Parts: sequence; structure tokens; C-alpha cells
Amino acid sequence: MTPAQLRALLDAVVEGRIKTDDAHRQLLAELRNSPYEDLGFARVDHHRSIRQGFPEVILGLGKAPDQIAAIAIRILDRGHPLLVTRAGVDVWEAVHAKVPEAVYHDVARAITVRRDVPRGVGRVAIASAGTSDLPVAEEAAVTAELMGNDVERIYDVGVAGIHRVLSERVRLSAARVIVVVAGMEGALPSVVAGMVDVPVIAVPTSVGYGASFGGIAALLGMLNSCANGVSVVNIDNGYGAGCLASMINHL
Amino acid sequence: MTPAQLRALLDAVVEGRIKTDDAHRQLLAELRNSPYEDLGFARVDHHRSIRQGFPEVILGLGKAPDQIAAIAIRILDRGHPLLVTRAGVDVWEAVHAKVPEAVYHDVARAITVRRDVPRGVGRVAIASAGTSDLPVAEEAAVTAELMGNDVERIYDVGVAGIHRVLSERVRLSAARVIVVVAGMEGALPSVVAGMVDVPVIAVPTSVGYGASFGGIAALLGMLNSCANGVSVVNIDNGYGAGCLASMINHL
Amino acid sequence: MTPAQLRALLDAVVEGRIKTDDAHRQLLAELRNSPYEDLGFARVDHHRSIRQGFPEVILGLGKAPDQIAAIAIRILDRGHPLLVTRAGVDVWEAVHAKVPEAVYHDVARAITVRRDVPRGVGRVAIASAGTSDLPVAEEAAVTAELMGNDVERIYDVGVAGIHRVLSERVRLSAARVIVVVAGMEGALPSVVAGMVDVPVIAVPTSVGYGASFGGIAALLGMLNSCANGVSVVNIDNGYGAGCLASMINHL
Amino acid sequence: MTPAQLRALLDAVVEGRIKTDDAHRQLLAELRNSPYEDLGFARVDHHRSIRQGFPEVILGLGKAPDQIAAIAIRILDRGHPLLVTRAGVDVWEAVHAKVPEAVYHDVARAITVRRDVPRGVGRVAIASAGTSDLPVAEEAAVTAELMGNDVERIYDVGVAGIHRVLSERVRLSAARVIVVVAGMEGALPSVVAGMVDVPVIAVPTSVGYGASFGGIAALLGMLNSCANGVSVVNIDNGYGAGCLASMINHL
Amino acid sequence: MTPAQLRALLDAVVEGRIKTDDAHRQLLAELRNSPYEDLGFARVDHHRSIRQGFPEVILGLGKAPDQIAAIAIRILDRGHPLLVTRAGVDVWEAVHAKVPEAVYHDVARAITVRRDVPRGVGRVAIASAGTSDLPVAEEAAVTAELMGNDVERIYDVGVAGIHRVLSERVRLSAARVIVVVAGMEGALPSVVAGMVDVPVIAVPTSVGYGASFGGIAALLGMLNSCANGVSVVNIDNGYGAGCLASMINHL
Amino acid sequence: MTPAQLRALLDAVVEGRIKTDDAHRQLLAELRNSPYEDLGFARVDHHRSIRQGFPEVILGLGKAPDQIAAIAIRILDRGHPLLVTRAGVDVWEAVHAKVPEAVYHDVARAITVRRDVPRGVGRVAIASAGTSDLPVAEEAAVTAELMGNDVERIYDVGVAGIHRVLSERVRLSAARVIVVVAGMEGALPSVVAGMVDVPVIAVPTSVGYGASFGGIAALLGMLNSCANGVSVVNIDNGYGAGCLASMINHL
Amino acid sequence: MTPAQLRALLDAVVEGRIKTDDAHRQLLAELRNSPYEDLGFARVDHHRSIRQGFPEVILGLGKAPDQIAAIAIRILDRGHPLLVTRAGVDVWEAVHAKVPEAVYHDVARAITVRRDVPRGVGRVAIASAGTSDLPVAEEAAVTAELMGNDVERIYDVGVAGIHRVLSERVRLSAARVIVVVAGMEGALPSVVAGMVDVPVIAVPTSVGYGASFGGIAALLGMLNSCANGVSVVNIDNGYGAGCLASMINHL
Amino acid sequence: MTPAQLRALLDAVVEGRIKTDDAHRQLLAELRNSPYEDLGFARVDHHRSIRQGFPEVILGLGKAPDQIAAIAIRILDRGHPLLVTRAGVDVWEAVHAKVPEAVYHDVARAITVRRDVPRGVGRVAIASAGTSDLPVAEEAAVTAELMGNDVERIYDVGVAGIHRVLSERVRLSAARVIVVVAGMEGALPSVVAGMVDVPVIAVPTSVGYGASFGGIAALLGMLNSCANGVSVVNIDNGYGAGCLASMINHL
Repeated sequence: MTPAQLRALLDAVVEGRIKTDDAHRQLLAELRNSPYEDLGFARVDHHRSIRQGFPEVILGLGKAPDQIAAIAIRILDRGHPLLVTRAGVDVWEAVHAKVPEAVYHDVARAITVRRDVPRGVGRVAIASAGTSDLPVAEEAAVTAELMGNDVERIYDVGVAGIHRVLSERVRLSAARVIVVVAGMEGALPSVVAGMVDVPVIAVPTSVGYGASFGGIAALLGMLNSCANGVSVVNIDNGYGAGCLASMINHL
Repeated sequence: MTPAQLRALLDAVVEGRIKTDDAHRQLLAELRNSPYEDLGFARVDHHRSIRQGFPEVILGLGKAPDQIAAIAIRILDRGHPLLVTRAGVDVWEAVHAKVPEAVYHDVARAITVRRDVPRGVGRVAIASAGTSDLPVAEEAAVTAELMGNDVERIYDVGVAGIHRVLSERVRLSAARVIVVVAGMEGALPSVVAGMVDVPVIAVPTSVGYGASFGGIAALLGMLNSCANGVSVVNIDNGYGAGCLASMINHL
Repeated sequence: MTPAQLRALLDAVVEGRIKTDDAHRQLLAELRNSPYEDLGFARVDHHRSIRQGFPEVILGLGKAPDQIAAIAIRILDRGHPLLVTRAGVDVWEAVHAKVPEAVYHDVARAITVRRDVPRGVGRVAIASAGTSDLPVAEEAAVTAELMGNDVERIYDVGVAGIHRVLSERVRLSAARVIVVVAGMEGALPSVVAGMVDVPVIAVPTSVGYGASFGGIAALLGMLNSCANGVSVVNIDNGYGAGCLASMINHL
Repeated sequence: MTPAQLRALLDAVVEGRIKTDDAHRQLLAELRNSPYEDLGFARVDHHRSIRQGFPEVILGLGKAPDQIAAIAIRILDRGHPLLVTRAGVDVWEAVHAKVPEAVYHDVARAITVRRDVPRGVGRVAIASAGTSDLPVAEEAAVTAELMGNDVERIYDVGVAGIHRVLSERVRLSAARVIVVVAGMEGALPSVVAGMVDVPVIAVPTSVGYGASFGGIAALLGMLNSCANGVSVVNIDNGYGAGCLASMINHL
Repeated sequence: MTPAQLRALLDAVVEGRIKTDDAHRQLLAELRNSPYEDLGFARVDHHRSIRQGFPEVILGLGKAPDQIAAIAIRILDRGHPLLVTRAGVDVWEAVHAKVPEAVYHDVARAITVRRDVPRGVGRVAIASAGTSDLPVAEEAAVTAELMGNDVERIYDVGVAGIHRVLSERVRLSAARVIVVVAGMEGALPSVVAGMVDVPVIAVPTSVGYGASFGGIAALLGMLNSCANGVSVVNIDNGYGAGCLASMINHL
Repeated sequence: MTPAQLRALLDAVVEGRIKTDDAHRQLLAELRNSPYEDLGFARVDHHRSIRQGFPEVILGLGKAPDQIAAIAIRILDRGHPLLVTRAGVDVWEAVHAKVPEAVYHDVARAITVRRDVPRGVGRVAIASAGTSDLPVAEEAAVTAELMGNDVERIYDVGVAGIHRVLSERVRLSAARVIVVVAGMEGALPSVVAGMVDVPVIAVPTSVGYGASFGGIAALLGMLNSCANGVSVVNIDNGYGAGCLASMINHL
Repeated sequence: MTPAQLRALLDAVVEGRIKTDDAHRQLLAELRNSPYEDLGFARVDHHRSIRQGFPEVILGLGKAPDQIAAIAIRILDRGHPLLVTRAGVDVWEAVHAKVPEAVYHDVARAITVRRDVPRGVGRVAIASAGTSDLPVAEEAAVTAELMGNDVERIYDVGVAGIHRVLSERVRLSAARVIVVVAGMEGALPSVVAGMVDVPVIAVPTSVGYGASFGGIAALLGMLNSCANGVSVVNIDNGYGAGCLASMINHL
Repeated sequence: MTPAQLRALLDAVVEGRIKTDDAHRQLLAELRNSPYEDLGFARVDHHRSIRQGFPEVILGLGKAPDQIAAIAIRILDRGHPLLVTRAGVDVWEAVHAKVPEAVYHDVARAITVRRDVPRGVGRVAIASAGTSDLPVAEEAAVTAELMGNDVERIYDVGVAGIHRVLSERVRLSAARVIVVVAGMEGALPSVVAGMVDVPVIAVPTSVGYGASFGGIAALLGMLNSCANGVSVVNIDNGYGAGCLASMINHL
């Protein structure tokens, strides 16, 4: 039972569309479900949706395809939307075999099953500096869309050709929150944040070579941003940025 | 002229409370003011308020007291609120001599002059792990208050005595955005973010010794948070966190 | 001859169950065995059991399967229990061919042959933060069990859902020593140590991505723990933690 | 009320030495005391003694002398022993003025007031590599003594003159737990742990120059120890090591 | 004898303005001067002007004021211009006492004595991101001016207010080589290099706090610049940048 | 339309070789071409040639062969020269299939198509320390040649046999700008810069093992060069060095 | 012509065994050989033997097998001994095909061809801490042997079982110079250096996991050694250690 | 009793100059002296001279002046030479008050008292790159001289003016072992080692700024030296280098 379903039930009771006794029974049944489901190798957290507004998401990294498919089924059984991140083709095949309605986003390396969720208030813009940042940007975009947000993609607008990002000022200003994805020197979030008055979530990527040190250069650049309203998530953490953007967009 | 003043002017015109010609003259005068004012050693950015919703803030670090006082006067002359961060006693004395109405917050090491600004929608909670994190937490609190937010202080609730933060669940859940300040292992943001469904802005502090490496341990801990909705600002950057929290709270 | 066997022999002599001459002969034979056995590529340390309470353990990393099998046989020939850590399938096959009674623990990547060893005084609890920490947690568990301890596994109780670890307070408090395994931000040991009054051995894992830097983030978090009674072993060193836990549990 | 006092009260009731009504009143009074005492700038944790076997300890670093004196009085008011670490002369003077019975340990930079606490089972040995490691070693020693342990000091036995530590084999073997303090290359814990079968708590110190990097070299050396039974605490964390040693010695 | 003086002599001989014998004598005298002058604590390199186009410059860091004054006199005796960098007030006083015509640049912390040197072909622009970068920017400016270049100062144009640097496009484009000085995230060189087609010399500064790590963040950002024509010198090395800019501007 | 073509057109109009109307039409057509061409996954920047003097170059790293071939065709369609760096054999095959006139430089791992471009003023020398630095040195050489420069290759002249580089003094001195490529300790740029009076662009390579840390040792060595006129580009960034050298050589 | 051959020739002339004219011719021929031989991809340094006492050695890392074989032949053609380090099986096959008398040392991954060289004065001892350090230790041993030294191998004597190295005191003391190879905490050189009065060359190895960081822990430990007479070479640099040991042993 | 005195005694007995009984008595008395002398805060190691060829040296860093004076007296009482390193003026005054014959070397910050020690075989050359490296170079020189070596100082010969070091080839080649001291990029040892065939001991110094990181750049450069015969000691460790050079020069 998601927060939205809970709200609908209560509304229905208040408006007389459902009997109190029925609502009572329904709620009791729901509460009798353990908040965890123990699969031996994992505790699936079914109450996260109530605590945090979105159900548990499966980080594909370092889990076996079979384990992932098993967890996926439990999540869907409760009526939650499904999101598997960092899913290679082997994971996709294992999940697809069990969940035919699942969709694979190959650039984002994500698997999703959509469910009705509350819509965000405004738009989430997702800007990226270069072509190689696309997988991370798309992970953020897919995440935000699944969580009920309209997403505006503004890609390949790195600062070395500053007119590219300047020419997108209108689309950027129209967003309620902006995710900015960049590798190498990670300067794009500073420039974007100086142009708008909404929160900017900076995502460093491991794109680059030599002294980019797998994203450290971009991470440090973003942490030291001299612009207001910038905060940073982990290197390559498109999911985290999309999730936080959605949370802000639902305020 | 702040965005709010601009809005009020336009409303007044529409509602006939002010004549179009007068509004025209007033706007022209405003526009004639250069967006920058060049003091030789600095360009004061008077349009930041329009672009970013809050006027320029003075980072006290590495500027001479006289320079700071000079910039402060220009900002106040335009009717903006004043915020000087990282202000030692010498800076305070230089500013106070020129700006008698200024207030000094000694724990936060900040100087402020209040002005009417738009109020945030909900509350900003500011949690800190230990007593030594207070300067950074207070910098965030003073910043958020000056920017028009109600601030809830929840201090000394580090994870080594987990019941301390658990007992504050109600106050934390009541906030629209939470700033979490912590040094040493930096674990508090993860725990807080797991308890609520609003954005958590994590601020690592340089508190600690040995392998805390001046805040790196806390910074890394926060970047790697396994909880949703956590993003991170620079070490000891209370101002940045307070500013971002205000921005989110004004959405 | 293990310390236990030596004790048993002495007891038997004192109680008259064995003749002094026989004990003498037996001890002489034992002493005649060199404390080292030189295999050309390694010196097998047969007296470690006497010096340190447990015989030499084979770290599989960077040794050839044949070398490992050869060392394993020498250890078993002396009546010692066998533990090979970091053993891939090729090592398992080489050892199994020579030691049919060996057991392979695939999650822990360990090979064991049990022998009677002195039992620990209480329980060793092994807690882990996430599913991906299982290999390290199991290496600790298998090690502690082989060394004569009752092990309580408490897995997938990371701090992002703090009620998971809180609901295990009873099992944690019942242990005499606790091993806590965590990657990413490594916050679990602080929380656990704040709940109990027994030693907590923290094991950072290389689980994570981006700024986890192969376990450095978790390592630093644990070293900076603000809770009492926490000490740390090397990244991914489940064996070391299990061994130390056993040593403490045998005090 | 310490755990020991609680136990004594219950024993007295069972044995009829105290009336149930009196015990009831006494326990009620105790429970009415808030587990925290809020001093505005700190929450003094009076129940830590119950949860963790030893009351709250004051880390002097980054707190004002007056604040420390104020917290010290609250701790002593409840009948707890007092320990202030990292206490400079100014802190000592502030505390001494309010607590005349306090003792200052100048090498350890610690302030203590002794109280009756349960005695540890065996001895705690504290070994140090060089003369410059003394402040950290003494912090560990003072901590362990205050917590009820007999402490054996074995100083200046670094590995560059290996016979020094070898000649202390008897005293080391007689301990139930050993704290080993070393800077520079941090090799002493490995050598000690190879000689005994009890837990070794390694404390890296920031002693050294150049590539010792403020203790990192010693820290890494200790984390990579090839000997069994070694775990590590933070650089210069003599208190943490002494506290953990006491905890193990009370098992 | 500078390269220009040598050229003038040769021209004079060719044009008959000076007799071959006189030129011969003059050159012999010059050659008889040792290329080094040994002051005991330093070897003054008088031929550097011939090899590298500019005489030896004195890095004030880590030399005694008296030593610096002594070297300064030797350099001036040969008719070379004088440049002392990183010169505090004590150095200034020691040099001024011996060299009354010397000039002190207090922001740049540099001491100079001008001499006629060949003029650069075009202009050297020096841009800086913030007010706190001024000392490094001025060190570059003073160096380039002393070496015969027209310098265009474009200060306080950091990327967080991108219109500031955009509005300086004309002055930037008019330069033959540009030095860009920036701390914090170090993004300015990328933006500038994307706007022009001349070499950009990036100078990271140690300005910033927290994760700026004394200029490492800016350094890494600049090394990873995605724009063409950017190269980097050491942190705070204004002298090196000014010197290289002059070298390029003399091509 | 390259800057050279634009110049030629204007000259032709001035000299009456082309009619104003025709020039007008031609320029209009050119301007009607969007400065960007959006391929969905990338924005090809056709005006870079005008802004920066050389058209967009394709960094092969992290792009699919098909994407690279598609971008290559658009660049060639506009009459620009083509340069693809970090191109493996698969990329070469994809590009070659579409662009038969392309040339593959296997040591440099680069693909080029030559076009008439303005010639540089002097020579670009490219020196390398060891045989293993060849791929990076050749990337610089191929880049500089394509951009219209005469290139002098001076390879395998590392400082451990100092006479090797000394014997090349004449060829080095004859260059207008020098690229120096070195791994391991990265000392060659200092030695070369001390011998000449032209700019030295230092390129650290990831060649080496152990404490070379993938080029960090060489990078730091070069940043700390005590010689004048040295600046540094990213590790292994032969392209960046060749491009900057060309830019300087066209001044 | 090696230094020994040169000496023999001069002795023969002095003693009348060879005619001055013949020696003259022979020396002229030798000198006519260029000190370098340019293979296009490498400059083979044939005079290194004269300058440094041993001919050029081929580092196999990052060179093609064919290149290595070609360089090997040139070295052997001049009568020099051959040493190829870091030679995989493919390199061995390429060299063996051209040089049938070559020998492959598979643990050391080295290829050698022996020649008569001057003998060292005493013995070179090579000690290693663990079995996994063997490849590096053997590289040192093979190098030293080829360069004319008697080598004493003392393997698997790590400090965790301190009696192992103590029992080798006689063999260690008998050496004129000692190479000590160790990974993990790298403590063995300190212990060895404290037992002897000859130079100890410490070689850190990349053996270990977690916080050993590919040999950094061992490297730092060795640099910070508190014992006299220890110096350090690069991580895994067995060749460098063997070569230096030989140089010292030939003094 | 030093090794030399012991040898003299034995020679005298063999040659009949001393009676066996007297030698016996003398040796007995010597042996009765404990190898350690326990001062409470330090164990003075009087047998180091026998084990390592030179008596204990006092590292002044982190010891109180009184402690140092006390240890100094014990060392002199046994007839050993005295060396105190890292001795500030306060230490010098404390020692001088007790040891009037002591000499202070202010550049080297060392205190010495000479005694007759065995002379080294050849010369020790000590080269330094710049003026600021003098304190470290002099520490090495003073150490080597005290230990019985002729020292050749070759200062201020950094690689940026390569002819400076080339012109010292004769003096360098005449040494039996060379200490090379350099900060910044640390390239000098590679160049020197390429010119000679004797061991080169490289000492990185913390001289430099910015990315020199307190000597790390120089340290890494030296560890990665591509020249034969180079080994490295800790940053600023002039004493260690001088001591090792003496040890090699006494072989």
C-alpha cells in the first residue's frame, strides 16, 4: 500500500464510498504484512514507500541476476513500481523472464515497471556536459520519470562552448530543480547555478582520463562551486540525483 | 530592487494603485543602476537578487576588514539584507563602525543586517552531531533565518547514542528540508534521511583528529550515503547548506 | 600437537591414565618435529598453534592451487584444522582432489576441514549492512566457527533503515563480541557500538562505487567512529575479524 | 547509578537486606532523572554507564574550558568517575578550580577523578615504540587505570632494536590484552602479535616527519599487519585504545 | 650583456658605428666574466639572460633577507632587471636598504627594478576569478610587465556570474596570450579558452576551504579542461605564468 | 567556412575578383547553417573553427564507433579536416568504411583526413623520454601536423643518459615551441627548458609502475619544474599538447 | 667492449702481449661504433657499460616482443650480457627464437644470457617476507647473479613470526649488502637493519589487499623506517634493488 | 667500547702488549654494563655501536631539551661520539650547558662531539639542487663527517641549468658514494646517477610550494628514477642519507 493508496482509502471512507468496517479490515491486512520480507540474502523493505515516499530500489551492482529477479517480484507483488539500476544484459534477461512487462533502458542500464505515483509539481531539468556523460544523465532521467516527474533533457552543453548552455537559459529557468551531470573538470554546475534560482544537484561522472582520477576532479570542482544552490551526490550516482530531484519536485 | 519589490510594483500598476508613468520612471531608474559596481578590488553583483533570489553574500575569508566594510555599505545602500560569513572580531569591528545596526553572531562567526524578504513555505531543521559542530550548524541557521526561514535547531544528536536522534523524529519529520552537520565519521545524514521523506543536505565538518583528515572522512561518508535524498556541500560550508535549504524551502 | 592435546596429555599423566614414559616419548617425538617445514616456496609454521592458539591459515591470494594443496596436506598431517581463504574454484578443485573431506563455502570463498578445538566462552555476532557485504561477513563467520565459536548472523541491517538494526538489539546484546561488516559510508559499527557494551570489530568492505574508493570511505568512517569499543581491521579482511573475535571470545 | 550499584541493590533486595518498598523508591528516583541533561551546548549522557559500562568521557578538543568544567561537574554529581582527554593547562585550571580533587596527568594531557569501578579480569599491557609516543601511550594507560585495570607499561621497545621487545616477552605474555603504540613505520604491533595469543590493539601516532604524513604510514602499516589478532584505532587515539582494552579485560 | 645589447653591438659593427677592435675587446671582457658568480650559498647564473631571454629571478621563499639583498646586488651590477618574488616586508626592507631605486608591489609581494628589455609583440591579458586571487594575479602581472609586456587586467570575473566574463569578451579576444587565475573549482580557464583562439595559461590558487585542499581542486579542474589551448602551471605560481606569457608574447 | 576561406572571400571582394552580391549570397548561406548540428547524441560545433582556429576534434574515448563515424561525416561535409583521437581498430574500421580517404596512425591511435589549413610560423619539436612514451608523443605529432605545422621528432632522450638530450641541443633550439613527453619521474621538461628560450609544453604519461601511480609522479614533477617557460597538460594528453603547440606556432 | 675488456687490452699492451699498433686499431674500431644505435623506435645505449659498469637492460613492460628481440640482438652483438625484465611468455618466445642460448626465469619473469663480468667483493643476501613476494625477490636475485654476485636467498621470514628472521641472523650478517623484499606492512627491513651493520635496500611489493593500496603501505613503512642504513626503491622494483646491490658489492 | 677499541684490545693481547688477565678483566667490566641504560623516559642503546657500527643518535624532534641533554651525557660517558639532529637553539643551549665541548652546526641544526672513529675508504659527495636544500644537505654532511668520512660538497647544481651539474662531473665521479638532495621536481638524482657508476642516495626535501606537497613530488620523482643505482630515503632525512653513505663508504 503506497501513501497514495492509503490517502485514497481514507478519502473514500470520509466520503462514504467505502464502509468503515471494510477500510478497517483492509488496513489490518496491510499492517499484518511484515514491513520486511526476509529472502535469506536480503530484507525487502516494503514500508520504505511510507517512510520515504518511494519504495525500495534495487542497486544491481554486486548482486546475482537471480537474486535481483527474486527481489523484483516481491516489490511488484506489493503493487510498487520497479527500478533496477546498474543492470547489465544478464540482469535484464533474468528479470524479463520473470517480469514480461518490464522495460529496459539500455543507455541508462536500468529496468523499470511503471505504476501510478503522485506527480511532481514542476519540471526536472537534466543537463549534461558531454556525450560520454549520457549513461549517468539517463539514469537520473529514468529515475525521475518513474517517480512521477516531467523531465527536460538538455545534453552536450559543456562549458568549453559556453554559448551552448547560454542558449538553453529559458529551458533551464523553467525547471523547478536541475540535475547537472559532468565529468572532466566538472564546471557546468557552477555556470548553471549562476543563471537560475532553483536547486542544482551536481553529479560528477567518472568520464575523463589522466588526472580526472575516475571522477575525483569533477567531484572536487563541484564541491568547491562558488555558486549558490549547488549540492553534490556521489560519482556516477545518477539514481541518487534523480531521486533527490523528485523529492524536491514533490515538495 | 528585489524580485518581491518588482512584483509589488507590477501588482500596484495592474490594480491601479500606481500610475504607469510612475512605474515606468521607477523601473528606468532601477535599470540605470549598473548591475555591477566596481570597487577596484571587487565587482559587487547587485542583480544577483534578481537572478538568484538573494543578494550577494560576503565570504569574509581572505579579504581585508576595510574591503569587507566597503562592500557591505554598497549592498545595504541598495536595500539588500547583509550577510558576512567567516567574520572574525576584526571584521566585525570594521563593519560595526560603519554599520551600527549590524548584528554579530559569534558562534556562527557571521554578521547580519535583516531586511524584509519572502518567507519560506515550511520549516528548515538543522541537526548537528556534536558540540564541536556548532559553528558550522549556526552558520547554516543564521543564513537560513536571514533568508526568511523558520529554523528548528536539533543539536548534539550523533549516532553513537542513537536514541538521541530517534527521540527527535517528530521535529525532524515536521521540517520541509533538513540540514545535517557532522564531523568524524559523518554518519548522521544517513540515519536522518532513512527516517524522513524530505531532502537532507549533508555538511561535513573538519572536526575530528587523526584519520578524519580535516573533514575528508565525513565528506566521503556522506557522499557514499546509502540513504535516499542526501546531497553534500563542501566541508564546513554552513552558509552553502543554509542557502540551499532556503532555496528549497521557497519552492 | 595443539595446546588442547598437550593439556590432555599432561592431565592424563597426572591422573595416571598414561605412563610417564609414554608421555615422555610422545613429547619427544613431537619436539623432534621441526617447528617449520620447508617446502621450498614456503615455511609452514607448525608451532603457531602453540604460540597463537590457532594453526597457520592459508591466504589463497597470489599462491598457485598446487602450492596451496601441498601446504594444506602438511597442516592436516599434523592434526590441525584447515582454513584456506580467498579460494577460487580452481583452488577448491586442487585441494578437494587431495583432501576429500574438505568443505567449500562458496559465498565466503573459503575451504575448511574441522577439527576439535577449544570452545569460545560466549557468542560471536556478525552483523552486515547490505547484501553485497555477504562474502566478507561469511568469511568472518566461517573463520569464527572453525575456531570453535557459536556465531549469530545478523545481516542486511544498514543504517539507512535504522529500525532494522534497532529491532536486533536483543541478539546483538547477547553476544560477547560483535563483528560489524559494512561498505559505502561504514556507519553501522558506530550505531551498534552505541547500543552494546562489548567490543565491536569493524570491517570495511570494498562494496560501493565512485567516492567509496574501494573501501576507503568505509575505512575512514570506522576509524573516526565516535562510539567506544570500536576497532578496525583491513578492508575486506573478514578472516582477520573472525580470528580476532575468536581470540576475544576465548579469553 | 552504575550497573554495579544496580546489581548491588537487586542482590540486597533478594537477600532481604533492603525492603522492596525502599528499592522501589530508589529505583523510581533514579529513573526520574532524565537520561540526558541539556546544558544548552551539550547533552550529557548519564545513562551511558548503563548502556556501555562506563560513563561519558569528555574529549577536550574544541570545547571551551568553561564548558568542560560545567560538564565535569554534572558527571561527578551523579557519582561517576571523571575523564577529560586532550586537556591543556587552561582546561586543567578551569576544572581544578571547580573540582579540587581532580588529578592532572601532564604527559597524557588528561584530567581524572577516580571512583570505585568493577576491576578487570587480568592485566592490560601498554607497549610503545619510542619516547615520542609517550603522550598517546600514557593517555591509554590513564584511561585503562581509571576504568579499573592493572596496567603494565612497556615503553621504548621499537623494532629497530628487536632485542628490546624480545626481552619483554614474559611481561607481554602475562597480559590479557595489549595496546601497542607506534609512529613512523608502525611495525611493532605485528611483531608483538606474533609473540602472544591475546588481542593486540594498535594505535598509530602522528610521530615522525616527511613521508609519515602525520601518522598515515603507521596507520597503513598496522591495517596491513600480517599477524593475527591485530585491530586498529584512529591515529593518536590513546583513549579509544585504553577504553577498548578495558572493555575486553572486563569480559 | 643582454641579448638585445649583444645584437646592438653586432649591428653597430656591421654598420661601422663601432670598430671591430673595440667590439672585440668588449666581447672578450664580457666573456671573461664567469657565467656563475659563487656567493658561497648560491651560484648566480649571469648567462641565463642569454640562454633563456631573461636574467635569473630570485624566489624569496626560504632565503634569508640578507642573502636576497646580496644576490640582488650582483644581478643589478650586471645591468639586469631585478625581480624578487614572495618577498615579505622584511625582505623588502633588506633590499631597499641596499637598492634605493627598487619598487615594492605589496599585493603581488614582489620587488622590482626596471631595465630596458625587448617589448612583447601584443598584449598579455590576466584574468582572475575572485578578489582573493589578486596576489597571484598581480604576481603574474608584475612579472609580465617587468619582462616588457603590456598587461590587461580583467579581475573578479568568476563563472558563478557568467555575464561578468562574457562582457569582457572583447578585451580577452584582443590579447595575444591570456593568463587565467582561479581558486575553488578552477572553471574559469575552460570558459575563457572556449571564447578565444590564443593560448590560455591556467594558474590554480590555494584560495578556498574544505575540499579545495589548498588548490588541488582547482589544479585538477584545470588539467581536465575540455577546452583547447589550456595548459597549467603550479598552484599559486603567478611568476611562472607571467614568465611563460612573456615568452610566448615575444615569439 | 574556415577563417582562411572567409578571409579569402573578403579579399576577393575588395580586389573585385568576386561581386558583392555573390559574396553576400555566399555569406548568407553560410550563416544559415546552424552553428550546431544536433545528432541526438551530440551537438557538432561547426563554428569552433571560427572561434578557436581549428574545427571540432573527436575524442574517441567512450563513444561508439558508429557515433564517431556519423560525427566524422558531418565534420568532413563542411570541408573541415578530421581528427579522431584514442581510436581503436574498431573505430578505425567504422570510420574507414564511411570515409575511404581517412588515414590511420596506429602508434598514435589517431584517424586523420588532411585539409588545407594555415601554416605555422616555425617548427614544433616533440621530444620524448622513452620508447613507451611513443603513443602519446605521436598523438601530439599527428595533431600538430594536421593543424599545419612542421614537426621535428626527437625521441628516446630521457635524462638518465643526459648526453642524449644534450646532443640534440641544436634541433631543440631551432624550434619555436617544444612539446616534451615523459613518464616515470618526468624530469625531461626541466632539462629541456633550461637549454632553450621558447615555451615548453610538458605532457606526463602513464608509463611506469609502482609509485608512478599512472602518471601522477611525472605530473607532479612537471608542475614543480624549477625551469622557466614550462606548463603542463593532462596525463597522456598528446592531443592537447599538439593543439596548444600549433596555436602558439600560429601566433 | 666492456670495461673489463678495455682493461685487459691495456694490460696486454703494457705487458707486451699485444702490439701498440694492434691495440690502436682495435680501439679505433671500437670508438667508431656509435655509442647509440638507432633502431627507429629506440636508441640502444652501448656505452652505458663504460659509464655505469653494466650494459643497458631491457624493461619488458610496454614494448612489443619483436622490438625486445631486436634490441636484445644488438646488445648481444657487442658482447654484453643480456637481461630482459618483466618478460611474459610471449616475449620469451620472441627472444628465444632469435637467441637460442637465452634462459628464462619464470618466477622472476626475466630472460638472461650470461657473460663474464667482474665478480662482486662479498655476498648479496636477498630476504623476503612472504611467498607472494617471490617474483620480486627473484628478479633481484637473477639481476644480482647476472651482474657477478653470489646471492644468498632467505625467503618467507616475515615479522609476524619473528623467530624466523632471528634464526637467520648468521646468514644475514655474513652479507655485504642485503635486499629486503616485503609487501603488506613492510616491516621486515627495519627489523633486519637493526640486526646488521651493512646497507639494506628495501623493496616494497604490491602484494596485499585493501589498505595496502598496491604497495603504498609497504613503501611508506619502509621510508619511515626507524633503523639506520635503510633506503628504498620503487614498488616491485626487484631489478633496481639487485642492480644497486651489485653496484655496492663491487665497491 | 667501540668495535675499534675491541679490535685494538684483541690485537694487543695477541701481540703480547697486554696480559690476558687484564684483557679478561677489562672485557668482563664492559660486559657487566647493561646494553641498555634506562632513564625512565628512554632506553639508551649502548650496544648499537657493536651491532651497527655507530652509537645511538638522538633525534631532537619531539623530545624536551632536558631529556636530550641527559641522554647526551650518557652517550658521551661511554666514550661515544655525539650527534643530535633537528636541534633548535633551546636544545643547543641545554646541551651546551652540560657539554661545553659540543659544537653547533646552525644550518644543519645539529650538535656534535667528535671522537676517533674508523675512516671511510673513499669520499662521500653531497650534491644539492638549490639554496633552500642546504639544511638537509648539511645534515647529511655533518653526519657523514662525524662518522669518519671525507665529504665533498657540491651545492646549487639543479637541473634547470644543466651545465652546472655537468661541470662537476669530475668531482662527482671521484666519490665512492653520492648523496643527492633536491626538492621541487627532484630530478637531480636521475641526472647524477646517469653520469657515474657508484650508488646514489636520493633525499627529497620539503622545499617548494603548491603541488610539491611538502616533498611528495620530489619523493615520487626519485622513486621513479629511470637511472640505475638510485635509492631513496625519507623526505628531509639528511641524517639517514649521511649515515647510509658512511656505511657504504666503510665497506
